[in-house]
Amino acid sequence: MNNLVERFRNGEQLALARLISVIENEDARRNEVMAQLYPLMGKAYIVGVTGSPGAGKSSLVDRMSMILRKRDETIGIIAVDPSSPFSGGALLGDRIRMQTHALDKGVFIRSMGTRGSLGGLAHTTKDVAKAMDAFGFQWVVIETVGVGQAEIDIMHLADTTIVILTPGAGDSIQTIKAGIMEIADVFAVNKSDLPGADRVATEIETMLDLHCDTTKWRPPVVQVSSVTNMGLENLLEAIENHRQHLLTTGVFQKIRQERIKEETLEIVNHQWQQLVSRQVKIPGRINELLQEVLNRKIDPYTAANNILAHVATSFKSEGAEAGPQRKIM
Amino acid sequence: MNNLVERFRNGEQLALARLISVIENEDARRNEVMAQLYPLMGKAYIVGVTGSPGAGKSSLVDRMSMILRKRDETIGIIAVDPSSPFSGGALLGDRIRMQTHALDKGVFIRSMGTRGSLGGLAHTTKDVAKAMDAFGFQWVVIETVGVGQAEIDIMHLADTTIVILTPGAGDSIQTIKAGIMEIADVFAVNKSDLPGADRVATEIETMLDLHCDTTKWRPPVVQVSSVTNMGLENLLEAIENHRQHLLTTGVFQKIRQERIKEETLEIVNHQWQQLVSRQVKIPGRINELLQEVLNRKIDPYTAANNILAHVATSFKSEGAEAGPQRKIM
Repeated sequence: MNNLVERFRNGEQLALARLISVIENEDARRNEVMAQLYPLMGKAYIVGVTGSPGAGKSSLVDRMSMILRKRDETIGIIAVDPSSPFSGGALLGDRIRMQTHALDKGVFIRSMGTRGSLGGLAHTTKDVAKAMDAFGFQWVVIETVGVGQAEIDIMHLADTTIVILTPGAGDSIQTIKAGIMEIADVFAVNKSDLPGADRVATEIETMLDLHCDTTKWRPPVVQVSSVTNMGLENLLEAIENHRQHLLTTGVFQKIRQERIKEETLEIVNHQWQQLVSRQVKIPGRINELLQEVLNRKIDPYTAANNILAHVATSFKSEGAEAGPQRKIM
Repeated sequence: MNNLVERFRNGEQLALARLISVIENEDARRNEVMAQLYPLMGKAYIVGVTGSPGAGKSSLVDRMSMILRKRDETIGIIAVDPSSPFSGGALLGDRIRMQTHALDKGVFIRSMGTRGSLGGLAHTTKDVAKAMDAFGFQWVVIETVGVGQAEIDIMHLADTTIVILTPGAGDSIQTIKAGIMEIADVFAVNKSDLPGADRVATEIETMLDLHCDTTKWRPPVVQVSSVTNMGLENLLEAIENHRQHLLTTGVFQKIRQERIKEETLEIVNHQWQQLVSRQVKIPGRINELLQEVLNRKIDPYTAANNILAHVATSFKSEGAEAGPQRKIM
């Protein structure tokens, strides 16, 4: 493992891929790896890209990547696709995209599915993003299908979040309903080569007129097309403007600090859950209590309280092996 | 509070509404309430209804409710709408639907939004469903926008899950991608008065031919329309068939037992998180550790481990007040 981290530090993409697998498979070594990578983190700018299925997230991210590569900037891309056993879509899409960037070491793409993500998709995605950050990519771009809470959780990791809408399909209004509007820092109207794009842009502007707190940041609305490459430079400029806004107002530093606090507490809760899971797998008091609930001798709330007490009390003996004890200087 | 539970037991809907507010607001009394209601739970049949925004979930559930009311069966409906501050959609929709059923005590509708749900949407929704079950509704129907992990978590509560697709909009293929196919027990092709419904139904059947494990349950595909009321009886029959399948194969009992175990462990983790949250709010060792992380004196993983140890060790003193200690006989 130390050898793997060493190779990671030397910039070997294969080592990055292997460490991501460690993170995804919730290996006992995951926290150790993350702790070792921690000193390398915090340099990448993280962009979230979200929109309905079919809004063209992947193509748009690919086009943006090409422009960034021309500027000699490096990009790690995470495609979050809660894919089904029925589809295999993530894997296929991944392969096609891999080919586009196959010979370019400045781009790294990884798809994340719900399966094989034992620690929860949001938690795992965040750790993979941090690994890409630690690896040294200047940009980490996270694409999600933007409706559910898990996706919104993931987007909280982003410094700048782009919400993609498209003309037709009643997309804009439905997206408002789905509750991702408030996480948008930039709106991209994709497929703006198609009719109706102006109307969507106007709708968003009207909504912003009504609801946006202009003392803060007003999200720009950028019309783009990954078919004609229209507006791509404007989109990158909008991201850069938002980045400057965050830096000059001090919000950037504040958000990053708040996020580190939140994430530390998430790790606490995650470690706790693993502690409980381990104890459930072995016969003992916890399984006795669960059986009593099934037999309706005790209600789940009282049982939960007793289980909590039991695991907390037993923590001391097990705690010693729960993670690395390492200081960073 | 005891008075409120008493009135709940006597069938007062106002008491149900008040208890749901207690659940939603994560009141300290929440677990106490849930423990008191526990002996009343387990009788309702729980149906999940999921589909893309605009698939017509609400209308379809309303039509189904009307048929069930004619049979003199009672229904509690939970509309999960992760609404935005921009929309207010949940509230408005709720009011319109309330009017339809205003004079009917056999239907109770509640909307759940992401905001005001401190304990997480899935967790709160499950508790509200259980409260409706305990109140005595024969059916509890949970509607969700079916893409994210939180929604899939919610659907695990359902005995029968209906996935709604619609003709046009490339809906079926996108839904496959969004990973909710595997939770479907019944497919409903809504808006089947529109052209293209046959094609969607055929697509689903083809997909099932390819991927469905026919030794288990093969989800029927039912064409419905809440405009013409076509197929509604067939849809209810499909639900009933699935229910009978679960009962005769013993799967029903097995799933319910597994669910009780899972939920008990969820309560354990939830109580733990509240324990941590309470301690973060007061000055002390946890905040010192978080500050050390911010100052980069310690990595978040080591800090998390120390926080876990600290909270676990301090549990004994606080544990006594963490919940009710009550036995059910």
